[in-house]
Amino acid sequence: MAGKELWQWTTEKLLTEAASSAPTPGGGSVSAFVGALAASMVSMVANLTLGKEKYKEVEPQVQGILAEAEAALSGLKNGLSQDIDEFSNFMAVLKLPKNSEEEKAARAQKMQGALVSATDTPLGIAENCFQVLKLAQALAPIGNKGAISDVGVAAYLAESALKAAMFSVDINLPQIKDGDYQAKVKAERARLFGEAAKICAATVAVVESRL
Amino acid sequence: MAGKELWQWTTEKLLTEAASSAPTPGGGSVSAFVGALAASMVSMVANLTLGKEKYKEVEPQVQGILAEAEAALSGLKNGLSQDIDEFSNFMAVLKLPKNSEEEKAARAQKMQGALVSATDTPLGIAENCFQVLKLAQALAPIGNKGAISDVGVAAYLAESALKAAMFSVDINLPQIKDGDYQAKVKAERARLFGEAAKICAATVAVVESRL
Repeated sequence: MAGKELWQWTTEKLLTEAASSAPTPGGGSVSAFVGALAASMVSMVANLTLGKEKYKEVEPQVQGILAEAEAALSGLKNGLSQDIDEFSNFMAVLKLPKNSEEEKAARAQKMQGALVSATDTPLGIAENCFQVLKLAQALAPIGNKGAISDVGVAAYLAESALKAAMFSVDINLPQIKDGDYQAKVKAERARLFGEAAKICAATVAVVESRL
Repeated sequence: MAGKELWQWTTEKLLTEAASSAPTPGGGSVSAFVGALAASMVSMVANLTLGKEKYKEVEPQVQGILAEAEAALSGLKNGLSQDIDEFSNFMAVLKLPKNSEEEKAARAQKMQGALVSATDTPLGIAENCFQVLKLAQALAPIGNKGAISDVGVAAYLAESALKAAMFSVDINLPQIKDGDYQAKVKAERARLFGEAAKICAATVAVVESRL
């Protein structure tokens, strides 16, 4: 399947296909979808804050948060489609001939490219989830109090989607031979895990103080 | 809208509606959907384990896990539909007349009933997420190694969906006058939060040891 097809499935079909033994959608795609739901919760609370007399003073900030949440949502949707396409891409490389030394070398090189791409995609999903977390943190103290719990929902879901997407990084990274790339991704992974836990806890604490 | 309608939406529409200022789907429904995705990941790994010579010995346990994951998925789908219906129910009670003392008393009584129902529903969603977590824990040491990371995805997502669903409990519970009910729900909330964190960490550790 092409990744874009998933957006025309019913919600019921998404669950059925995810539960089946079909290879896609797998954990990376599901993580991107959860990140997208988290981005939607940030947008919803921003939309419920804008245009209200009581929240007039924070309108410019909330407009900014809404625009960034929409960009993160778009990035996560693209990441999901891409995650599914990576699978077909990988399968195609696996089927390349390896009869001669030249064919083997060409296949190995394409395999390294496919692995980097299959690492960059979930890393991008995790980075977009991190962005959603930061938006939830910015919205928590100023968003509409009547819907503030949904900012907490966004924070919990974005943090877990970030960690879940990183499993796809952990699987592919050890097979990549470029040491500089490995080191760079490992550092980014550690940074995102550490920061995300702090931002999630701080955001939930603000939300709870406003329930 | 009736809760069941959501299952015929496209995945794209789910995100658009969640992001809009429409009151449903809100955080409770979104949490149920994430719990359902986690249940689907458990089912997928179970399906990829069954029928494989290498995993023949664990087949009876995995069959049991698959059946329970399907039951949890079904429970979460019902919980989502119910969460949306609770909202219409609540709005209907708010519109009841309060012209006389009798009308006021009748309205207050119906309101208490609606609040209990709007607390039981997300609590049930959280309990189903907890069940998914326990199934992920059971599958982590015996599921197909080639797909084991998706058990970790299930664990992260189920734990966060549990915590996210509990916000709906936290909002409604303080308005319920029945002290026994309040105490019972608070105890269950504390138990689920504590146990879920432990089970999630233990499951992720097993998954990481098998990557």
